[in-house]
This record gives sequence, structure tokens and C-alpha cells, in this order.
Amino acid sequence: MKSIDLNSDLGESFGPWSMGDDEAMLSIVTSANIACGGHASDPETMFTTLQLAAQNSVSVGAHPGFNDREGFGRRVIPMAPAEIGRMCAAQIGALMAMASLAGARVAYVKPHGALANLAARDRNVADAIVAAVKAIDRDLAYLAISGTESERAAQAGGLQTFSEIFADRGYLSSGQLVPRSQDGAMIHDPNEAAERLLSYLDSGHMPVIDGNPIRLDAHSICVHGDSDHAVSMAKEIRKRLSDAGMTIESFVKPAAR
Amino acid sequence: MKSIDLNSDLGESFGPWSMGDDEAMLSIVTSANIACGGHASDPETMFTTLQLAAQNSVSVGAHPGFNDREGFGRRVIPMAPAEIGRMCAAQIGALMAMASLAGARVAYVKPHGALANLAARDRNVADAIVAAVKAIDRDLAYLAISGTESERAAQAGGLQTFSEIFADRGYLSSGQLVPRSQDGAMIHDPNEAAERLLSYLDSGHMPVIDGNPIRLDAHSICVHGDSDHAVSMAKEIRKRLSDAGMTIESFVKPAAR
Amino acid sequence: MKSIDLNSDLGESFGPWSMGDDEAMLSIVTSANIACGGHASDPETMFTTLQLAAQNSVSVGAHPGFNDREGFGRRVIPMAPAEIGRMCAAQIGALMAMASLAGARVAYVKPHGALANLAARDRNVADAIVAAVKAIDRDLAYLAISGTESERAAQAGGLQTFSEIFADRGYLSSGQLVPRSQDGAMIHDPNEAAERLLSYLDSGHMPVIDGNPIRLDAHSICVHGDSDHAVSMAKEIRKRLSDAGMTIESFVKPAAR
Amino acid sequence: MKSIDLNSDLGESFGPWSMGDDEAMLSIVTSANIACGGHASDPETMFTTLQLAAQNSVSVGAHPGFNDREGFGRRVIPMAPAEIGRMCAAQIGALMAMASLAGARVAYVKPHGALANLAARDRNVADAIVAAVKAIDRDLAYLAISGTESERAAQAGGLQTFSEIFADRGYLSSGQLVPRSQDGAMIHDPNEAAERLLSYLDSGHMPVIDGNPIRLDAHSICVHGDSDHAVSMAKEIRKRLSDAGMTIESFVKPAAR
Repeated sequence: MKSIDLNSDLGESFGPWSMGDDEAMLSIVTSANIACGGHASDPETMFTTLQLAAQNSVSVGAHPGFNDREGFGRRVIPMAPAEIGRMCAAQIGALMAMASLAGARVAYVKPHGALANLAARDRNVADAIVAAVKAIDRDLAYLAISGTESERAAQAGGLQTFSEIFADRGYLSSGQLVPRSQDGAMIHDPNEAAERLLSYLDSGHMPVIDGNPIRLDAHSICVHGDSDHAVSMAKEIRKRLSDAGMTIESFVKPAAR
Repeated sequence: MKSIDLNSDLGESFGPWSMGDDEAMLSIVTSANIACGGHASDPETMFTTLQLAAQNSVSVGAHPGFNDREGFGRRVIPMAPAEIGRMCAAQIGALMAMASLAGARVAYVKPHGALANLAARDRNVADAIVAAVKAIDRDLAYLAISGTESERAAQAGGLQTFSEIFADRGYLSSGQLVPRSQDGAMIHDPNEAAERLLSYLDSGHMPVIDGNPIRLDAHSICVHGDSDHAVSMAKEIRKRLSDAGMTIESFVKPAAR
Repeated sequence: MKSIDLNSDLGESFGPWSMGDDEAMLSIVTSANIACGGHASDPETMFTTLQLAAQNSVSVGAHPGFNDREGFGRRVIPMAPAEIGRMCAAQIGALMAMASLAGARVAYVKPHGALANLAARDRNVADAIVAAVKAIDRDLAYLAISGTESERAAQAGGLQTFSEIFADRGYLSSGQLVPRSQDGAMIHDPNEAAERLLSYLDSGHMPVIDGNPIRLDAHSICVHGDSDHAVSMAKEIRKRLSDAGMTIESFVKPAAR
Repeated sequence: MKSIDLNSDLGESFGPWSMGDDEAMLSIVTSANIACGGHASDPETMFTTLQLAAQNSVSVGAHPGFNDREGFGRRVIPMAPAEIGRMCAAQIGALMAMASLAGARVAYVKPHGALANLAARDRNVADAIVAAVKAIDRDLAYLAISGTESERAAQAGGLQTFSEIFADRGYLSSGQLVPRSQDGAMIHDPNEAAERLLSYLDSGHMPVIDGNPIRLDAHSICVHGDSDHAVSMAKEIRKRLSDAGMTIESFVKPAAR
């Protein structure tokens, strides 16, 4: 394993309200999951973020979520799987058209928040999202949480499928994340996070809190950018991986057309 | 002039609320301007309307409007022209992606309500919409109100440009519509509406309330479908034009892919 | 039992979209549950409905629901009970202020759709709504589904509490409604609905599909107004109850101030 | 003039998005104009801000704006004056009910952004807002921009009327603000702002950029809190006024009930 991607959720401002430091993050990550007007964003935010991504040669993914700005897409809105697929299609299409204006290109899809978690455990939901993506453009790739129904649905659907791990979350030997209510759920120290990732990238095995390191496949590391601390951690991780000789690059081609 | 198109604004329901009788209208018109989630509609409504259009071999246009469901896109929301272009892009893209799911194809763009009226008189706005359409797909056609800045912008932009007249509105010798506050603004009698259209289609000249008939170019007749009376009038107009030997067909290929 | 109330969910239009025939229903019912801008309505709709209610001497209840127009308040949006209480407070307050402008008075609260069903079975949610109502005005009454946690919470909270039964739904011997998926869930025939209600009002016992009639307490009968058929049924029920000598009047004073 | 109020627009966060530093500002100002869910805010934000205001013994005003979160209430949405009055009523009512839950009390009304500017110059709009406020509660006071139609409408309507000046804006000899496009529109230096205010409070005359200081009546100084710089300026102004012997207190009683 000589190259790895860093991805982050970006373009999550809305109207007068800012979220995170997208400019800083776009100088750190190699793939940007850009909100599409569902859980966050609006046409202006999409456009600006897409332009910045293209300028930074960062790859662009559509980041659809439940149509629930007030809840930031972190609440499951009860919907049939087919309705979820259609909701995603509308959002992905909006971002794709906006990318045309911004001189960018949407290369992959990664669901957001409660939608991502639901698709990770509910194959019907995952299948509906994958079907929507395929209907729009079979060349769109899919970025899934490693080891989930989402990943399996995208592979079964014949999409180019990539998987991600989290820089700041602890793992269980089952491959699941340590629940946020438990000790070891969050990794706050940038140095520790970098060490774990280097160890993983070297061995293909991720340390867990309840046993021996487990085998995990990942093409990308998800980093956060919603606070000053998060930006610092992302920067440190990128630096440490580079220093160790890793090539930091996206799993797909960057945004510029 | 042996063939003409009938177009109507459709897919303008929202969530639990219905608007008009789309099923009836899709058996009458040859082009459907389908709302994209701005002034009306939602993913389910878009999908259903697109499917129905495809089943009826009706051509599909994107019908973007101000993001203002409460005002149904009939209020001008103050925005810079470039912002308007981006707002339209997001809506058109949403409908295009949804069309992929519904087995349909978006062939043209026609702005809605206050946005259409603004683009008809403000060239900067018209140019911004045209630029957005071109960036998304140069093969999208543009349906403009005959004789307006919209039409000129689309032609200047190199888009395939078509123009429309209104079945139920009176005209002035300036080519403008009679303001709704004046006598002669609305034509309520289906027979009278049909007679006027037949006379126009025969001569290329439209009767006006303040002088001699004027020359107007039109590829399409806009009919309404938001009331029982409107559906009856649309039906009568189609019948009368057919009986007179006109071919009723869209100016672009129908929706089915 | 010599007098009974008829209530209906009204004011559920939104912007350009109409729902039901409020004018017809306000000449039939004695209490109007008026939507407050959550699952439906907007300031204009609230105002118009409140004015009509006052003109018809119909009592007014606030009808809060999940902030989810697209789903019409029929989907449970995951929220903590205290958040639900605050959401209801904002909606009730909006309607109360609007009532001041419309020369009406909000006399009670009845939750809508998924919120009503959730409060019927989850005492914490019911308690949160009741606490919000009490904080706003202890003189507001509460209209609950007969035999539910909602009713118990309102009584325990010291609110004037009234309960309702449904004109068009079948009952089980448990007191629950027959699930919509089962035979006997819906009563479509106005005559049958009227007969059942008369029998109930005479005896205090409601026929059930799986045993002997059960004792139910009710101060109000909920009738629907969202279709022509529904309006006809409401009219027939009112006529039959009147003909049988029942006084049709609200459990609280009518809206006019 | 021995006492003066400091007011600021607060509670303008929305869902996951923060605006300004409300905690800092509530330790500086004596009156808080709290957004009501129109241009900003939601039930949770209203509740939290009201609680904080009560804890800090800060007076509370309702701060209604156009229902336009994307534009933050800075765009004029075309509406009839009576519609504007009803829109304000719904928002004010929502905040009043929420105040009941939060142990606070709404004491006055101050419109926001484009709505405030429109009411400042259009007497029909100002009258409609005043009429709505009066219908809700004649004891609500009104905080208007000094010397505007808003102020005159509130006085004519018999509301307790107070007026404000801006800490960081230059004035013309007409009493209008210097347009933002001109030199002297903004005062960036906290020291300069404090000096101007002290001079005004001492003399009742405000320095202008095009002549001699003009007579202005003001019961309150509007300070901003939407950036670190703004918070610093507000703090400096409060300190300097206090040091000069001014009592900093609201024109109405604080929020706690």
C-alpha cells in the first residue's frame, strides 16, 4: 500500500451560515464530499466549493443526505428505499449540473450522516441508492464505509467501489466503530491518530480496543474539518503520512474537467 | 405552418398537495414543462410526472423557478443574475437526474412565473439562464415567450430556440400581452380561443385589441391545466386544431430515452 | 349524553396548494383543529381559516405537527421529548398570535398525525407537549384520542381534557383502532357510520369487530374533510345526530373573542 | 441623558449552524432582539437564547424578518402590507410562546434587515406591522430606527415607542445613514465609535459627514455581535459609556417573568 486518499465532508454551509474551514481543508484532502442541498448547502455554496475543489485539483464526490437542514441530515426521516433513491438522484443531479458551471466534475457518491449509517446496515436502502447512481451515470464511483452493506451493494451493482476508514474513531474486533458512548470511541490526539493510520497502512491491519488488529480494506481515510482542532489533526495526519513516504492522492481523477 | 406544439406547466404538486390534473393534460399536450423543486414539486412528484410524460410520449422541459414554494414562484426574489443562473442549474440538474431514473429525457428549458417574466424583460437575467443551460448541456433547447429578451438571449447564446404564444391571453399591437387589469386580457371561451389560434396558424398574424393583427413567430401554444375549465379548454383547442388538419407535435423529440 | 362535538383537521392548505373544503366543513363541525405552519399552513392560511372559524362560531384548537410539510406530518422525525414540546410551543404561539389578528381565540390543542400517534403511545412525548401547553396558557384545553397516554398526560397535568373517537374507523375490543391493513379498519358508508355513532351515543358503548361493544368516553367525534366523499359523510353524520335529538356543540367556547 | 440601552440582534443561529457569539453579547447588551424563525432561528435556538437572556437579566424583543433563511432576511420578498403584518404576527407569537417555556418575557418588537428598512421608508408596511403588534398585545413596545416611518407608525398606533442609533455607522445631515458604498459609512475603530457616542449622549447631537451635528433622539444603541471584532467593539463601547458615568440599562424591563 503506497498511496492513500484523504476525504472530508465539505460545502456544508447554508445561506449566511458557515460550517468548517473549506479553504483550509481543500489544501489538505484529495477528495471532497460536497453537500448537495439536502442536509446542507445551497446553489451558491455548491458552486463556490466546486470551484475551490477544481482549483485545488481535489476530486469531487456528491454527498447526498436526508432533506433535513434543521437536523443536518443526522436524523432518519422515515422513507421507503425507492423514495430515498429518488431523493439522492435529485441531489446528485443538482451537484452535477452545478459542477458543469464551476468547471468541475462529480466523480463519485458518498452518502451523509444518518443516510450513510442507514445504508450501511440496510441493504434495501443501499441498493436503492446504488440503483439511482447507476441510472444517472454508470461511471460514477461509490465511496462506502469499509465492511458495510453499502460497500456490498455498490460492488454487487457493478459500480467502481472504494471504501473508507475513520482517522479519529476507534474500532472493535467486529469491524464496527466503538460506539460514541464507550471509552476509546474517539481519538483526540493527532499523534495517536497518525500512528494508528501508519500502522494500518503498513500492515493492512487496524488496531482494535478488544483484541488483535483486524484486516480492513480502505482506499481512503475520512478526516473532519468542522473545528480548528479537526483541521489541525487533518494537517498533521497528511504530514505524517507524507513523511512516511505515502503518496496522498484520490482514488479517482480530480475535479477539473 | 402545418404542425404546432401544445405545452403546459406540469408536475407542480408538492408533498401531500395536488396541483392540476397532470394525467388529463399529458393526454392533451405534446410538451410538458416540469417543475424542478424550486417553486413547486419534490423528488416523488418529479419522478411520477416524468414517468407519465414518457408513457404518453410527451416531450419534457425543465421548468425552473424562484426557490419560493410559498409564493409559487410568482414573486421576484432579489438575486444577482449569476445567482439566478446557478439556482436554475441546480434545479435543471435535479430534474435531469430524475429523468434518468424515470426513463425520460429532458429536452428543453422553460423558466417559470416571475422568473420567466423577469428574463423576458431583463437581458442580463436571460443571459445568465442561457449560460447555465449551455454549461449543463449545449443540446438542451430553450422555449421562450415570443418576442422577448429571453428569446434573443437564447438565440444569441446559440441554443436551439423555440417560442410560444398563449392560448388564453389577448395581445397588444406592441406584441405584449394585454395586462390582466384590462378588458380583453383573458380569453375564457374555448371556442373563441380556438378560432384565434386557427386564424393565427393560418396567417402567421395574431389578432390584437388595439389595431391590426401582428406578425408573431411561435412553435408552441401554452395551455393551462390548473382547473377543470382549463383542461376543457386545452382539450377543445387540441380538437379544433386537429380537425383543421394541423399536426400536433412537439418541437423536440419526446421524453422516452 | 345529550350533546356532542364534531371536530375536523382544517387550515391544511399551503401557499398555492389547497387541501380539503374548509368552508364546507366549517358549516358542519363545531371544533376546528387548525394547522400552525408545521406539517401544513402558512400565515395567510392560518388567518383565513381562523376568520372563517370565528364567522361560523366554531371553536378553535391549535393542531401542531412535525415540521415536515413534504411528509404532511405523517412521519416521525426523531426528536427528544423536550424538543417536541418546544416545537409545539412555537406552532401554538404562532396560531395564537394570528388568532388575535383574526378576531378568534385558540381554546384547545390537538396534536396532528405522527405526532398524535406518538404522543398516544409514548408518555414522555405526551408529557412534554402537555408541559408546553401549560407553560403557554393553563386555560388551554387538550383534545386527546380516547384511552391513550395523551389523555392520561393531559389529565395528570391538570389541563381541561377532552377525548375523541373517529367516525370512520373500526375499533378493537382493546380500545385500539383496527389497523388500516385489516378488514373493518375503515367505515366508508355514511349510513353505517351514523348508525354506529348513534348506538355509541345512546349506550356509551362502541361496537368492535372482535367482541362485545366496549365502554368509551368521548366528548367529540373526529370527521374528515379532505375529499368530497368525506364532506358528504360529515354532513350526513351531523344530520343524523341532530335528527336523533343530539345537540351538536363544542366542548369549549367558540372562537370569537 | 443619563441612561442608555445597548441592543443587538441575537438568536440568529439555525439548526447545526452558529451565528455570532450570543453568550458574549448577552453579557454586554441590555436588550436582545431575538430572531423568531423567519430569517433565522428554530425552536431550539429561540429557547436557548431566551433562557440565556433571562439569566443575564437582558430585555427581550421579538425580531421578525422575511421568511427567507437562505437570504437571511436581507432581501425584500414582495408581499402586501397586510401579509407582512400576518407574517410578523406568526413569528412574534412563536417567540412569545417559547418565552413562556424559557421563563422569559417578550417586551418589545424590532423588525429585521430588509423588513426593517422597508418599514423605515414605507408607512403602509410600518402601519401593518404596528397593527399586528397591537392586536397581539398592546403592552408590547416598539424599537424603531430613529427618525423613520417605523417610528412614526408606532407612535401614531399608540405603542410605547423607542428609537435606536447605530454604533458603527456614519450619518448624513438628513438623518439618514451614509450609504455603504460611500466613504464614512462604517466606523471600524472602537475608540472612534465610543467617542462619537459619548459626544452624542452628552449633546443630543450626532456628528455627520456633511455638515454640523444633527439632533437625534435615541433610547438605544445598536451594536453588532457577528464577529470577534464586533464583540470587541461592543465591549469597548459599553466600558467607555460606563466609565463616563452612563447607566447602561434597557428601555423596558428585563426578560425574566
